[in-house]
Order: sequence, then structure tokens, then C-alpha cells
Amino acid sequence: MSTVSDRPRGGDAGAQAGSGPITEEEIFESHEGGKLSVEITAPLDSQRALSIAYTPGVAQVSRAIAADETLAARYTWTSRLVAVVSDGSAVLGLGDIGPRASLPVMEGKAALFKSFAGLDSIPIVLDTKDPDEIVETLVRLRPSFGAVNLEDISAPRCFDIEQRVIEALDCPVMHDDQHGTAIVVLAALNGAARALGRELAPMRVVIAGAGAAGVACANILLAAGIDDVIVLDSKGIVEPGRADLNGVKADLAARTNPARRTGGIAEALDGADVFLGVSAGKVPEALIATMAPNSIVFALSNPDPEIHPEAAARHAAVVATGRSDYPNQINNVLAFPGVFRGALDVGARRITESMKIAAAEAILSVVGDELSPQKIVPSPLDPRVAPAVAEAVARAAKQDGVA
Amino acid sequence: MSTVSDRPRGGDAGAQAGSGPITEEEIFESHEGGKLSVEITAPLDSQRALSIAYTPGVAQVSRAIAADETLAARYTWTSRLVAVVSDGSAVLGLGDIGPRASLPVMEGKAALFKSFAGLDSIPIVLDTKDPDEIVETLVRLRPSFGAVNLEDISAPRCFDIEQRVIEALDCPVMHDDQHGTAIVVLAALNGAARALGRELAPMRVVIAGAGAAGVACANILLAAGIDDVIVLDSKGIVEPGRADLNGVKADLAARTNPARRTGGIAEALDGADVFLGVSAGKVPEALIATMAPNSIVFALSNPDPEIHPEAAARHAAVVATGRSDYPNQINNVLAFPGVFRGALDVGARRITESMKIAAAEAILSVVGDELSPQKIVPSPLDPRVAPAVAEAVARAAKQDGVA
Repeated sequence: MSTVSDRPRGGDAGAQAGSGPITEEEIFESHEGGKLSVEITAPLDSQRALSIAYTPGVAQVSRAIAADETLAARYTWTSRLVAVVSDGSAVLGLGDIGPRASLPVMEGKAALFKSFAGLDSIPIVLDTKDPDEIVETLVRLRPSFGAVNLEDISAPRCFDIEQRVIEALDCPVMHDDQHGTAIVVLAALNGAARALGRELAPMRVVIAGAGAAGVACANILLAAGIDDVIVLDSKGIVEPGRADLNGVKADLAARTNPARRTGGIAEALDGADVFLGVSAGKVPEALIATMAPNSIVFALSNPDPEIHPEAAARHAAVVATGRSDYPNQINNVLAFPGVFRGALDVGARRITESMKIAAAEAILSVVGDELSPQKIVPSPLDPRVAPAVAEAVARAAKQDGVA
Repeated sequence: MSTVSDRPRGGDAGAQAGSGPITEEEIFESHEGGKLSVEITAPLDSQRALSIAYTPGVAQVSRAIAADETLAARYTWTSRLVAVVSDGSAVLGLGDIGPRASLPVMEGKAALFKSFAGLDSIPIVLDTKDPDEIVETLVRLRPSFGAVNLEDISAPRCFDIEQRVIEALDCPVMHDDQHGTAIVVLAALNGAARALGRELAPMRVVIAGAGAAGVACANILLAAGIDDVIVLDSKGIVEPGRADLNGVKADLAARTNPARRTGGIAEALDGADVFLGVSAGKVPEALIATMAPNSIVFALSNPDPEIHPEAAARHAAVVATGRSDYPNQINNVLAFPGVFRGALDVGARRITESMKIAAAEAILSVVGDELSPQKIVPSPLDPRVAPAVAEAVARAAKQDGVA
């Protein structure tokens, strides 16, 4: 009974327009009116339907939930609803552009949740950057959703905010820029090692970037048994001798770089097995050439990788980027839809480290026999990934006793 | 590319089951999994579609909004998105059942926004009843939506909260329990007067109930030119001689009841032209019999009217209730979908008094030639109502200079 004619929405004319480079016009046209809508699961086209979905019928459902709040998960949409939350402080490569400008990205994220995992999600963009206020706001909103995907919140604030939101809310919470990236990187690095017939643990890994993604990648690789991880920020190797480190980096300095290397990217890369770029910086080809034989290069900056994949391929045995026009595209969409779907499917109270590692294994498992240096992860469009990840994450949640 | 099979959602089997009284089983079955979903306006089924809706394409849209924030209304869903906000403190006839138990009602409200006005809306239920915190939270959420429908917030808190939210947010805000009811009551009372060939202004109106709906109805009827409005709460007539009045009621006492009547419902109804019941109380038929000839009775308590419509009809010339099984059903759904749609269509910065009065006139206009004592308002299912209201509200917003 949509009685008022719909206003123009994001048409798909642009997306279907087909070949050739994507034009600016095509992008803006397809964003006209936004990318999401809220729909009803059953039509309200009769007095009877109205009396069931609204007054007086709905009162019985409300009364039941008032008597037993756990029934909210069954009789409302919260058990399949993810809040995609941002303060707009670190959006894509654009930086602190604010909540309103971040909204198209959050709508896109919600669209990915729907497309890949069948989850409903709503963008919540906050007009505050104060960590106390962000945590407090989410605590107040808690009854409105079932899980929280934190998105595009700047480092180092994101670490503290995520930790506090996890502690304050009894539901799955994940800062995707950290852990979505880390999960896919772990999957891809495992894939690369297996494709090369190499062991992961003895590798020396150099991570360029000590923001959200860099820190989370370092943590997951340490947890996966790699001892020699070196992290660099814009000033060079993060190591205990530096006086300019914030708390998160100081902590990282204590737990990484066991050989106590100092200096910059040149010193770090010399003889290294893996380069992982998660910054907006550039790395000269000459430095990639100094890495150990059979090296692995993940240059994940978007849209411009730290080193062009063709240049990297002249020296490295495996090359991956965030780009869709080269092999081995590393994209968070391989992880977050299935992670949240699996966690929500079993009513998990949090997302544990083993759930993340299970997700990484599930991503890699989809590659199967096709594993090769040119195929270390599935395609981001592979429809088998999210169900495999969801199943593995759900199983791990049960094993961890959080579901 | 919904790759994970959908979990059970609110099936419409119940709603279609058809005739006979609605069963409890039918109600719960149709609420299973909730009543809403978030959908995407264009499929993400190719690398090209992904690159437009998400990275790298979306960055251009975000950059444009960062440069000019007004573009958010054009390139996100906010210009058609209503937040349905409640703290669960005064839900239907159930009282303070809390935010979780209120959620099925808010989902129902969102479903009505969609069905009747094509608007998207998201339920936001808050785990706080503190007015400062409610206002503060909505200020922080402001960039996430285009309008706020406050719902089921208890009186007298609702008056202060609504006023402060209106002042704090530069967008349409309306507490529907107040103004949705008042708009439909004004439409219906005008309809009744015209059907009886009577003038509205000289009527004496008795309002039983000094909560959200009672106060708002008193205000809109005063604004419509009725001088003699008497409001009662559970202790009797609200008048300046009473020492137990809160601020809102004391204000009401000063502006109503010009004859300075005292006492209870019996004293108020004696010779009155209109009874408007918006409380959960009961009125004996014998008191309705004491009203003036050609009287009008709106007994709007749900599901049990203050007086049974058949009993009222033995004395009154026009009878209306909230019930769908008797003529003249007074239901907020005649007002709020069109009010918000009209306000959002023209980008109104607030909802003014003349927009509300225009809405009431538009509702009545749909009845047209069918006007009679048995048809003073359109059916809540009449699809012509919301577009007529939206158009009138949009026009009034422009005339008022708020759009």
C-alpha cells in the first residue's frame, strides 16, 4: 500500500551501464537518494494485518518481552541487525571528513552486509569524536540492535573505543578496519605460504603502518605464531628506543621486533620475507629487491598500492593488493559479513580471538585446490565465502563458550 | 547475491489466515524475527557495482559531502529517513515496560511509515529515561537521519523532551502521541461539527486525560478557536484552585476552563457539547446522558473505549472510537505518515502549528461528499489520505518559511 509515489532512489542504471572506466557521473547518479531502504517483512494491507502488526495485537508481544527480555531477540529484528557505527574520523583514504560525509561509506557497508550475509544493518554516524561520548551513546542505544561494526574511527582512539564498547555491551562488537583487515591478511598470508610450500612461523614480516590495520595485523600474526614482526610508522621502525611513541605503539614496540632493529623501511625490508603495506606511503622497487628470496608482498593501500603490483612481481613470489584488476585482491568483505553472521546466528556475546582465526581459516578453505601464487584468497564476489566463515565463526563461538 | 539462506522472518501466513478473531499464536508467529528489513536499492552483483557503491567510487561522494554538507540530503537516505525514538516509558496501554519491550511497537510504527507514506524509518529505543540524556543522544545521532518521531514517552516528561529536541535539532521532530492524536481529533471534530451543521467555536469540550494526548488536544482545539475547553486528570477538573498540579497542568489550568468549573467528570459533562476521552478511565452512560443535545463523543481509549460506542450512541449525535469494528475510527495513522512525508519532501526544518492544522484539514478533505455522522474521518486504510496530508503539510511548511 505504498500510497505515495517513491522518490528517486539510487538507480542501478549506472552499475549496469557496463564496460569502460567508471565515470563520476555514474557514481553520483547511483548514489542519488542513498543506497538503502527499510522494508516490511509482511504487507499491512488489511485491517487484520494492521491489528496484528500494530495495535492491539503488538501489545501481546510487548508484554511477553517485558516479562522476559531475552524474547526481544526472537520477536524483533535485533538478532539480525548490525549497527555500522562511525564518527567519520578516518574515512577510507580521506581522513577526518566528519559523520555526514562518512554516511555514503556506511550505507555501502550496510549494503555489503545485506548482499553477502543477508544481515540487516543501519548506519549510525555520530556527531562526536569524544571516546567517552561514543561509548556512552552506544550503551544507551544498546536495545536497538544486535551487534556493532565500528568503522573508520581514527587511531589510536579506535583501540580504546573498541575495547570499552566490547566491555560495555554484551554483544558482538568489532572494529572492522582493525580485525576485518587482520583476518583477511592472515588468511592470505597462510595462503601465500602454502602456495610457496613455506612455513609461516619462521618468516620475518614487515608491516608499514601502525594505525588500526597495522596494529591489528601485527597482533593476529603474533597470535598465529610469527615471532619476528616489525612495524613501522611514518617515523620509522617502532622500537623501544623511540621517545615519540604513544601508548599503543610503545606496547607494540615491546612485543615486536625481537632483533631490536632500528631505522626505516630500508633497514626493515633488508632480508625480510613479507612486506605488508597498510599505510598510504610508497615503497621503492629497489627496496623490495632487497627482500629474501621467495618473498611475499601485500601492498594494500587503496586505490594506490605502496608499490605497483607489476613492479613488486619482478622480485616477490607472491603479490597481493586491494585492487580488483590484479590477482589476489585482499578485501575486508571476505571477512566481516560472515563474522557477524556467524556470531549473530548463535547469539554470541562477543567476538573472540579464536573466532577471528577460524574466520581466516574458513576464507582460505574456500580456495581449495585452486591455491597458487596467483590465487591465495577467494574472489571478494565468491558467494561461498560468507557462509563458510559464518559456520566456522559460529562453531568457534560455541567452543569458546561465548554462545 | 544473498549468499546465506535467510533465517525465518515475520511470515505473513498469520495475516493471511483470514477470518475469525485474531489468535495469540497468529500474532506471535507473525512477529517471529521482527517486522523490518534493510534492503539495498541496487544489487551489488558485480565488481563494477561494488566499485561504485563502495570503494573506490564512494570516496567521490564522501568528498563532495565533506565540501558541502547539504549534499548529504541528496546522496544518502537521510532525507527520507525517520528515526522512531522511544524510551519505552509509556507504551500503548502497558505503561513503562522499557525499551526492549517497546521495540515491536516501534517496528510496527516503522512499518506504517513505509506502508502509508513510502518513508524509511528505523526504531531507536533508548536505555535511559533521563531527559538530558535522551536529548543529548539524539543530538549526537543527528547526522544519521532526517526526522524524529518521538513515541510512547511518558507525560509530563514528553513535553519537555519534545521541546528540547525540537530546539536542538534542525529537522522535523514530533511526539506522535501528542500531535498525531491532536491532528486527527481536530479533523474528526471538524468533521462531526460539519456533519451536524454546527459551529466548532462555541462548543464546550471536555477532555478526560491530561497526559500527552490530552494536553496536545487541548492546545490544538484552543488554537482552532474553541474557548471553552475543560481538561480532567484522574483527580478531576484541572483548574487553578488545585494545589497538586505539575507545571504543565498548572499552565493548562490557566489557559482552559474559562468558566472556572470545579469538581469531576459529572460536573464537567453536564451540558457539554463534546466528550473527548484520551485516558484509560470509564464514563458511565448516565453522565453522557447529561450532555447537551446533538452532542459528540470521542471515546478513544484502546482497546476499551471510555464508554461503549453503542451506549454512547443512545445519547450522542456522533460517536467515534479507536476501534476498527465501529464507524468513525480515530487513528494516528491518518496523520503521522503524511505529516513526516510532507515535511521531508520539502526539507522542512521543523513542524509548525499551521502544518498540523493543514494536516487536519487535508484528512477531512478526503471524506468529501461522504461526510455524515457515521463518517467524519476517512478509513485508516484509505490510500488517499497520506498523499493529501503530505501535500498540505509541504505547502504549509513553505508558507511558514520553514522549508
